[in-house]
Amino acid sequence: MATVKAQLARGVRDFDPEFLNRRKWLFSQLEEAFMRYGFLPLETPAIELNQTLQGAYGEEGDRLIFRILNSGQYLESLTDEDWTAARSGQINRFTRLVTEKALRFDLTVPFARYVSMNRGNMVFPFKRFQMQPVWRADRPQRGRYREFYQCDADLIGSECLSSEAQMVALYAEVLGQLGFPSACVRISHRKILSFMAEALGLSSQSRAFMVQLDKLDKSGKESMSTYLTEQGVSTEVQKAWWILIEAQPAPPELLALLLQFSSITQSDLPASIMTELETLTHYIEALRVPSSFYRFDLSLARGLDYYTGFIFEVDSGVKGMGSVGGGGRYDNLTASFGVDGLSGVGISFGVERILDLMIEQNLFGDIPIPAAKVLMATTEPDSMHNLLACAQELRTQGIKTDLYAGDPKPKKIFQYAEARQIPVVAILKTKAERELQFVLKRLTDSAHIQVKPQEIQDWVQGNKPWNTQ
Amino acid sequence: MATVKAQLARGVRDFDPEFLNRRKWLFSQLEEAFMRYGFLPLETPAIELNQTLQGAYGEEGDRLIFRILNSGQYLESLTDEDWTAARSGQINRFTRLVTEKALRFDLTVPFARYVSMNRGNMVFPFKRFQMQPVWRADRPQRGRYREFYQCDADLIGSECLSSEAQMVALYAEVLGQLGFPSACVRISHRKILSFMAEALGLSSQSRAFMVQLDKLDKSGKESMSTYLTEQGVSTEVQKAWWILIEAQPAPPELLALLLQFSSITQSDLPASIMTELETLTHYIEALRVPSSFYRFDLSLARGLDYYTGFIFEVDSGVKGMGSVGGGGRYDNLTASFGVDGLSGVGISFGVERILDLMIEQNLFGDIPIPAAKVLMATTEPDSMHNLLACAQELRTQGIKTDLYAGDPKPKKIFQYAEARQIPVVAILKTKAERELQFVLKRLTDSAHIQVKPQEIQDWVQGNKPWNTQ
Repeated sequence: MATVKAQLARGVRDFDPEFLNRRKWLFSQLEEAFMRYGFLPLETPAIELNQTLQGAYGEEGDRLIFRILNSGQYLESLTDEDWTAARSGQINRFTRLVTEKALRFDLTVPFARYVSMNRGNMVFPFKRFQMQPVWRADRPQRGRYREFYQCDADLIGSECLSSEAQMVALYAEVLGQLGFPSACVRISHRKILSFMAEALGLSSQSRAFMVQLDKLDKSGKESMSTYLTEQGVSTEVQKAWWILIEAQPAPPELLALLLQFSSITQSDLPASIMTELETLTHYIEALRVPSSFYRFDLSLARGLDYYTGFIFEVDSGVKGMGSVGGGGRYDNLTASFGVDGLSGVGISFGVERILDLMIEQNLFGDIPIPAAKVLMATTEPDSMHNLLACAQELRTQGIKTDLYAGDPKPKKIFQYAEARQIPVVAILKTKAERELQFVLKRLTDSAHIQVKPQEIQDWVQGNKPWNTQ
Repeated sequence: MATVKAQLARGVRDFDPEFLNRRKWLFSQLEEAFMRYGFLPLETPAIELNQTLQGAYGEEGDRLIFRILNSGQYLESLTDEDWTAARSGQINRFTRLVTEKALRFDLTVPFARYVSMNRGNMVFPFKRFQMQPVWRADRPQRGRYREFYQCDADLIGSECLSSEAQMVALYAEVLGQLGFPSACVRISHRKILSFMAEALGLSSQSRAFMVQLDKLDKSGKESMSTYLTEQGVSTEVQKAWWILIEAQPAPPELLALLLQFSSITQSDLPASIMTELETLTHYIEALRVPSSFYRFDLSLARGLDYYTGFIFEVDSGVKGMGSVGGGGRYDNLTASFGVDGLSGVGISFGVERILDLMIEQNLFGDIPIPAAKVLMATTEPDSMHNLLACAQELRTQGIKTDLYAGDPKPKKIFQYAEARQIPVVAILKTKAERELQFVLKRLTDSAHIQVKPQEIQDWVQGNKPWNTQ
């Protein structure tokens, strides 16, 4: 028989019980928080039509989408000209001819597709959360996988700022519970960024300005200053702008700074911005979010194009670990499907990074894997039916019970129990005709005791002291 | 802006909270049962290398595998000759040139790949359960999807029949709990089928014989008789064989029938078969599986090639609904990865069919969707911050609380509550300066009451009677 090497595809992982148990715990914390805020679950399929995903993530995104080859005689409708064109550079066209489906790339576009498809039967506002894997043909590296979970919550069909405020509260609540006491939601507003661009005389290139701003963390203050000078922004205006960017004060002072900047640059600060800043702060305070947990930071721009209002980014508070979440308000998420007028707010939790961080920071504490509480074994093959009967009795009592089916040497039995993290081994000894005895051994300290079958559960559940004998 | 139609790919589904909640409940029942028997969870990635899946499912299976197109300049290494060859029929070769990965097709092959890869660090026997979606390019039809969940449990690295027995017990326990009191595990044995083929003089074509037998349900007795006659099996032998096939008696009588058939056909019934049948029955009885829940049925052959010992198939007991699970012992699951000598037993639950059946038979009973317990709303925009504070107080008490963010007309508010299955609506009325009052309304019977903010939770949790006022 021809054999192949057993190996994983690049950038994907197998998951063992320990990892799965931690992920399950994290996801259940998130789920419970979402539901406490009135979000309900939604799931969409792994496979979407190309047309749904095409163009939604920009050119770079398009390249990272995993496409599914059409089935059957998928070359039948192609011509030699199609081949020649593909060979001379038109590879994207060829791809469109041989694929019509692709793997889910994020949860936002499928959500927009879902809302657009079902809007006739939906009552708005609509709230959902979604935790599912996505796939990206990215170059794999530490902490970056080709298959990874995303975790999103969206509220669509309302312009009320109570939504933004509750998203901030949700972040605070969840990250606090998970063990990130120094986490902080940074808040900015796309309309303030547009106002800035205009005030700086860059309104014709506000997108380029936001790209520069988004890179500020990495490229540094000097690079930004050079850019502004190149664009003809005066030193005086730059100085006023840096105060605004670096101050990060609470809204009353922030408003004062904005007005000051507006006056220096002789530009109009829209009244709506002032109202929105005040209202959001008012709402966040009503939700009793600790003031250490959020701050306004006008250096925050966020990469995605579709945001139109408040934007968020969450720092973990763990040094050098960057963002563990982000989101914002959008007005036209469903526009590409021909559905207008649905404003909403979406946030996401970077669950893979949160998982990595929690493991690294030892935040999971004592989450035991769902191992059996006892391993039943016998070194006497003829006693197997008795062993099965005793194991079944324990299971009926709700006790997770494994039964050893391998090589019946004591050493092997204990190796198995250790590998499976089973705390107690019960070995059956048939003393005399019809009289069953078990030797129980606790793995942590090798304490042991001899008991009757019906007594096993007392010791396994810790109701009887191991040290009495 | 160019718009596209929002639609799903063929054969895949979106899942709403109601469905997800039922699936979650079913999966948790299965999980708990697996863990009660000492199985631990394992997950493998959606994407596997082609070489891992190739050939594992036969020619028909190969056609149904979803292949992932290579990324980047994936045609670069191809020649015009490759194209010409593909156009003249060598499509599979072309596919291999443009794809190296594929979507998971079942859970068995990834499990074999995992065991083969990690065997150096594993302690055997190894037990795992796995519940994940798989993808097949099948023609979609009622109850058959292109993305669907499979649910498997395997024990590998032991020849002990205690494993088979516990698999039968697990089936009995789970299906009983789910509400299938007439479910029944049919049991057969590949070695008995081989013995039969030999006794009928068909040992050179035992595979064809098993294929015929596997189809017996559908093609009927006459078709099978015609086949046997064509193969030169005498009427007398056929008669003896039909008795064996149709009797389905308990093992003592089954053994008698097997011996009788062996004597008529002057063939040797291997002693090991007799021992195995007796031992398995003994073990199943020790596990106290109700006798109505399993029967030996030598007409059961099962399609898959890799079984070598006992095989199982589970009837739901619901008329006309066929199998809801199956499995058996294999000796060479990992052979294609060059790993020999690992015998094991695997079973699977047909979870999608079980879900459909449970919905159809109304077996889920009262599993409420995880809806909010109360919807907080106000018709006074200026009161939003008070509403947020009251909502947050309820959440702090652990009460799932939604907050209405839409058009503040009473009719809209109640439509929203109904759509989200929220049982109580609390509408804030600011009576006088700083004094907050809520009108609570219960949707089932329109009972209503006026309360202070701190009293809401008593009514929402049903601690205060609604009918007193």
